[in-house]
Amino acid sequence: MDVMKATLMYGAGDVRVETVPDPVIKQPTDAIVRVVRSCICGSDLHPYHSMPTSTLGSPMGHEVIAVVEETGSEVTGLSKGDFVVAPFAFADNTCTLCREGFHTACPNGGFYGSEETGGLQAQWARIPQASGSLVKVPDVNPDSADEGLLASLLTLSDVYLTGYHAAHMADIKPGQSVTVVGDGAVGLSAVLAAKQMGAEQIILMGRHQARTDLGREFGATDVVAERGAEGVAKVMDLTDGFGSHAVLEAVGHMPAYEQSYGVVRPGGIISRVGVPQYEEAPVGFGSLFGKNARLAGGPAPVRAYLEEAITQVLAGEIDPGKVFDRTVSIDEVPAGYVAMDDREALKVMVTP
Amino acid sequence: MDVMKATLMYGAGDVRVETVPDPVIKQPTDAIVRVVRSCICGSDLHPYHSMPTSTLGSPMGHEVIAVVEETGSEVTGLSKGDFVVAPFAFADNTCTLCREGFHTACPNGGFYGSEETGGLQAQWARIPQASGSLVKVPDVNPDSADEGLLASLLTLSDVYLTGYHAAHMADIKPGQSVTVVGDGAVGLSAVLAAKQMGAEQIILMGRHQARTDLGREFGATDVVAERGAEGVAKVMDLTDGFGSHAVLEAVGHMPAYEQSYGVVRPGGIISRVGVPQYEEAPVGFGSLFGKNARLAGGPAPVRAYLEEAITQVLAGEIDPGKVFDRTVSIDEVPAGYVAMDDREALKVMVTP
Repeated sequence: MDVMKATLMYGAGDVRVETVPDPVIKQPTDAIVRVVRSCICGSDLHPYHSMPTSTLGSPMGHEVIAVVEETGSEVTGLSKGDFVVAPFAFADNTCTLCREGFHTACPNGGFYGSEETGGLQAQWARIPQASGSLVKVPDVNPDSADEGLLASLLTLSDVYLTGYHAAHMADIKPGQSVTVVGDGAVGLSAVLAAKQMGAEQIILMGRHQARTDLGREFGATDVVAERGAEGVAKVMDLTDGFGSHAVLEAVGHMPAYEQSYGVVRPGGIISRVGVPQYEEAPVGFGSLFGKNARLAGGPAPVRAYLEEAITQVLAGEIDPGKVFDRTVSIDEVPAGYVAMDDREALKVMVTP
Repeated sequence: MDVMKATLMYGAGDVRVETVPDPVIKQPTDAIVRVVRSCICGSDLHPYHSMPTSTLGSPMGHEVIAVVEETGSEVTGLSKGDFVVAPFAFADNTCTLCREGFHTACPNGGFYGSEETGGLQAQWARIPQASGSLVKVPDVNPDSADEGLLASLLTLSDVYLTGYHAAHMADIKPGQSVTVVGDGAVGLSAVLAAKQMGAEQIILMGRHQARTDLGREFGATDVVAERGAEGVAKVMDLTDGFGSHAVLEAVGHMPAYEQSYGVVRPGGIISRVGVPQYEEAPVGFGSLFGKNARLAGGPAPVRAYLEEAITQVLAGEIDPGKVFDRTVSIDEVPAGYVAMDDREALKVMVTP
């Protein structure tokens, strides 16, 4: 291929698929990959709502499963033809912070979507820090694999492991009560992860029945459709008045934060993975401090969790790919954004 | 004794020692104790600065070691003559939240200093929920014990175990870097607790040399006197640019909070035990979320840590009583407040 298709956003509501030059190796640590599947993220809807008009366009997409086509001179452990999952953030996986498990803070790492790095809602892509970032999927031929398997592997690039990160940072213990705020794809993934970690009660706060039904399939024991004070009261009723040990917040807006500290138990943990659309929030005696409630979360260091999650998916232990309820071709990506924005689709997969 | 002495505050700066009726059993779960030592807390200085004038007066004091004199009909495990430490908050030690280790949220618990419960800067006191709250000190006669031992036992009522709570909630692991913000008695206690938990680097942010010298004795490896951006830069220099894994915030004012998120490492934990003098604070992408920094802390559930700490003090493993640098009689309590407020004294002990 000489000139590939890629997705660019030119402003709020203005997503276009255009032909652009194929990516090339820029750094000896780069790899070039052929995209097998990519997808649209809930977080892509933030610029879709608010991006100022741009003549240049922002490359979109940060989730991908792919086949390695070319590697830079310093890339080790990867060969042409390897089928890989790419975390939504690249990282060297060797520095102090990566070794501590926080790859999204890697000083040699970064994010997709800039002019420099490009986006992954495309046919090909350049992956910086390829050795540290890409993880091979053993014994799977992506061109003949089951669609459900591909879908589940694709969620390991971001959405499932972002939900998992919420549960992990909340340090969920078997037998605990967990409340998940938000029934988007990340919230449902958090339900599945909480179930994996042995939560006994999983209360899903959401009001889109198709989504909460999938939440129940993933392990939710209760669904609370109410919001605000009414929603908090329902959760308190369901938890004998104590609240949940862990609250996984997968929205990012202030009302979700307020709901979270309303339902967290004394000594419990609020773990946020919805990117906060606020900077200041209540944390004093009346919200967190008085009841020793803790606050955790941030951009998921997917790379830290990837090997184990690939093993779980290949073993059929988890099926996080069920969050995908629509597939579009690369040319149809703009329609995919519309479908997710209108909540017609929960999460949209993109075939190249 | 028929009419005892007790401390009351009538407004900012107005502390008086008065004769009041001896406390009596009100609930069958109460005990009456004779105070052996009490003390003045940094948190007593908040009302000392801001309390509106009151004609009634607020009973003061919440830290005490004492001898049991009388027990209510439902009190078990305690007898007249037992030498005990009383946590600054009482609790039943049997409910769900106490069993989870968060006694300060016990629905049957509470705090001293109201007209109902009285204060502990006094000669005698009523202890609600005595069975759940009081912990016996074995084999020590309080009337002939070493003053240093009594001082260390007294710190277990609040100040040392509040510092310990900060370290505990920060989940300090051996080898980690810890920054302690604040060189008051709680901050110094947090240094000692961090040392106990195996911290390799303990940076104490404070600028009162007598205090930071005790901090070094307790285990601080570095002292940073600078504040604000300059202080943050110094800590980053001392931590190879990464920041500390744990930041123990023992002040409670916004600049200390800002310093804390400035020096916390990606993935690290800010643990607050200074009672926040603010309700809203930065927690979004630019402060906590972007680097997966966590926020913990609250009123210390001292009761949860008391048995182990008493054992450590009796074994001579820790000597937290060194935070006391002045002793006053009950009649001199007002002068004790002045000395602490003027920073002439770090922490003032009160003999009955």
